[in-house]
Amino acid sequence: MKRYEALAEEIARSIRDGLLRPGDRLPSVREASRHRAVSPATVFQAYYRLEAQGLVRSRERSGYYVTRSAAKALAAPPEPEMRVPPPSESTELDVSELVFEVLESAMSRDLVPLGSAFPSPELFPLARLGRSMASSVQQLDPWSSVDDLTPGFSRLRRQIALRYLVDGMHVPADDIVITNGALEALNLCLAAVTRPGDAVVVESPTFYAALQALERNHLRAIEVATHPREGIDLAALAEVLERHRPKACWLMTSFQNPLGSSMPDAKKQALVELLARFEVPLIEDDVYAELYHGTSRHLPAKAWDRHGLVMHCSSFSKCLAPGYRVGWVAPGRYRQAVARLKLTTSLTTSAPAQHAIAAWLEKGGFDRHLRRLRRTLADQQATFLELLTRHFPAGCRVTRPSGGYFVWVELPPGVDALELHRRALSHGISIAPGPIFSAHRGFANGIRLNYGHTADPRTGPALATLGKLIASAM
Amino acid sequence: MKRYEALAEEIARSIRDGLLRPGDRLPSVREASRHRAVSPATVFQAYYRLEAQGLVRSRERSGYYVTRSAAKALAAPPEPEMRVPPPSESTELDVSELVFEVLESAMSRDLVPLGSAFPSPELFPLARLGRSMASSVQQLDPWSSVDDLTPGFSRLRRQIALRYLVDGMHVPADDIVITNGALEALNLCLAAVTRPGDAVVVESPTFYAALQALERNHLRAIEVATHPREGIDLAALAEVLERHRPKACWLMTSFQNPLGSSMPDAKKQALVELLARFEVPLIEDDVYAELYHGTSRHLPAKAWDRHGLVMHCSSFSKCLAPGYRVGWVAPGRYRQAVARLKLTTSLTTSAPAQHAIAAWLEKGGFDRHLRRLRRTLADQQATFLELLTRHFPAGCRVTRPSGGYFVWVELPPGVDALELHRRALSHGISIAPGPIFSAHRGFANGIRLNYGHTADPRTGPALATLGKLIASAM
Repeated sequence: MKRYEALAEEIARSIRDGLLRPGDRLPSVREASRHRAVSPATVFQAYYRLEAQGLVRSRERSGYYVTRSAAKALAAPPEPEMRVPPPSESTELDVSELVFEVLESAMSRDLVPLGSAFPSPELFPLARLGRSMASSVQQLDPWSSVDDLTPGFSRLRRQIALRYLVDGMHVPADDIVITNGALEALNLCLAAVTRPGDAVVVESPTFYAALQALERNHLRAIEVATHPREGIDLAALAEVLERHRPKACWLMTSFQNPLGSSMPDAKKQALVELLARFEVPLIEDDVYAELYHGTSRHLPAKAWDRHGLVMHCSSFSKCLAPGYRVGWVAPGRYRQAVARLKLTTSLTTSAPAQHAIAAWLEKGGFDRHLRRLRRTLADQQATFLELLTRHFPAGCRVTRPSGGYFVWVELPPGVDALELHRRALSHGISIAPGPIFSAHRGFANGIRLNYGHTADPRTGPALATLGKLIASAM
Repeated sequence: MKRYEALAEEIARSIRDGLLRPGDRLPSVREASRHRAVSPATVFQAYYRLEAQGLVRSRERSGYYVTRSAAKALAAPPEPEMRVPPPSESTELDVSELVFEVLESAMSRDLVPLGSAFPSPELFPLARLGRSMASSVQQLDPWSSVDDLTPGFSRLRRQIALRYLVDGMHVPADDIVITNGALEALNLCLAAVTRPGDAVVVESPTFYAALQALERNHLRAIEVATHPREGIDLAALAEVLERHRPKACWLMTSFQNPLGSSMPDAKKQALVELLARFEVPLIEDDVYAELYHGTSRHLPAKAWDRHGLVMHCSSFSKCLAPGYRVGWVAPGRYRQAVARLKLTTSLTTSAPAQHAIAAWLEKGGFDRHLRRLRRTLADQQATFLELLTRHFPAGCRVTRPSGGYFVWVELPPGVDALELHRRALSHGISIAPGPIFSAHRGFANGIRLNYGHTADPRTGPALATLGKLIASAM
């Protein structure tokens, strides 16, 4: 256990034991640092962690306070442990049928969307964005599509480059390619560094879209054990790199889908160094980057990349404009290959959407919107965990991600997630069953739940129903 | 020679000989039909052909008249003959470097864009479309993306289905998948019916994007001889089907890029029947469908499809909204496969662009815009051919497409198109050299020229320069 983890754990114990009560102020960072002889950074990390767990909350220029819901949050089910997947051989993929079945069954507004991959569209400023588009699209220079054809609208690329700069990363606008959402970016990256039959490392469990993309590109998957809190197991990864010489790794380093895990900074750095040793490119899926629940951003692994091996993919679909389909990739040394693939795959990205988002970013309302969105999602996580604690039977475990909008629930032994999915559907509830997140259809007793719809009044009753279904299956 | 061709030829001769003069009215269809004992349809076809050649023009409710430029058009260089490509073995593809070099060299507003793949953006009602988007985007139901996720916005699919209906084709809205332009549609179709290493039939010459897409999907190309006026050679195709059992044909049946050829209806029907005999799907690239220069639309091969084997791909990029990137495919029996590939490739298509185009189509301004656009392109072709006749040396041949915005020029023997491309570039002119349209880099003395920018005052001087460069290379 790291220092900051030990410190966070100790404070959490104080809250659980009633030594610290709702409304109490934590010692300032400076006090705590001096008093415990640890660096201020360690204290910060501990406080962030407690904040992400919903136990404390910062008030500007005033410090950290224990939240009202802290005691309840501590009463929530324990976190799951890392499951070691079967021996890491590469797997030919044949997941589509199951995944499509599950996805297609869930495509209806009438279901309570706990299995959805998207947060509620009502979290986004779509009407204001529409007004922004209304004016930007009328000033659209008809010739701009000639200049910006494949890499995308230059003003948008400049805005994205500026956001990298704020994070201390140097990614020039010319090193960015705009794509039809992050999914196209990820597919282009795969195509740039693999040929049919090659093996690619993914997390275990991993986002099913990664498995689908691998299958679509005729690639094989190697699943590597992934910790529910701290991401992929580097020792296991090193062994796989040594033994299989895969052509790429496709990882979600922050707020991983489905676990919600995030690799700590030092681990991201170690990951980048490990991959550089084997000259294996990292396809970094960072679509939830902006959705951290604490006060500071998690840097992507790309921040430690010295060799241009990290292809950083993200989008505006999860943080600003779902449905606009504007994503991007900073492909490092693969920039030309990716840009050319973009040209032969879909030529370029829809101009009005690019222009509207560029105009919105230039106006400066983005960060205000993001602060509100992050706070909302953190609140929804707390509410969701509370409901889950109340309704789910003992024996369940649940992750407490520090960002995004998914929790991963480990059901009590013997409860089958696919069976639960079918029964939940018949009660008008969608969930995402574990086996769709694995090439070998493992995680038979895991489910991913979406807390990005918690404002939906059907959420509480749905979780109550789900709890009963789980109990009756035990 | 078909009846209508003979009739058109005879009338053209009368114009050339001065028997029919500018402003003269042709006999009415009824008169001509009675007088020559041919069906009215044959007369219509002959008149359409003459119209597409710029020799006559119809005036509403009044008949067909010889144009002012008819005599000049008849003085234009002769049409090229069909070139038989090398023996049709399948070719592993490695065209990209050359094609990218040529495309990237031409990406600048400062060049006279005779090599461009796009017509002038000034031909499109982008400002009015922007206003339509401005209002439609503000009424966008945030939840609609959930309902219409992968196949696309249902109101847009309905509008497209209606346009099929007007053409007498039954393609229900549910059989349509909206894509990021036609290029994505074509790529999805390829992926749906092939695996790496398979062979696919293309025209010779063929649109370079088809070669790039084949290469990107690790496929092999079989080029089949294609007539500059009437499209692919069916006898040669039958032999290839028999011998190679390719997995698909990718053809442009109307206004083929780069030749401008269009298969007559009967030939399209024969094509569909031939492919059905071998159970080979047709990927029909029909992006110029709306750009016919005569008075009636060319039906796609899809119109004769009884087995769901034709995957009809088109888009709004060339006829309404370049840069919006909204295309579609009617994939017949491959509908589910294509929709699932769309889901795993780019999830869905940009919502604001889909909604704006749907609103525009519902309002009913589309056909008015198209009539204007077609007339403009037909006029530009006539002007372009006139300029070409004036400036190009004898020994050149040129196609007279009945739609689209490309002509194919066969240079005098010994003039090298790639060399001409390089010299033209140094004079600020882009052209599209023949070898980028062929897997085996044939057509060394062909070039494709774009007449969709003829309103650009630089066009005349550019063609004069080009003519001199050709003459000096002879």
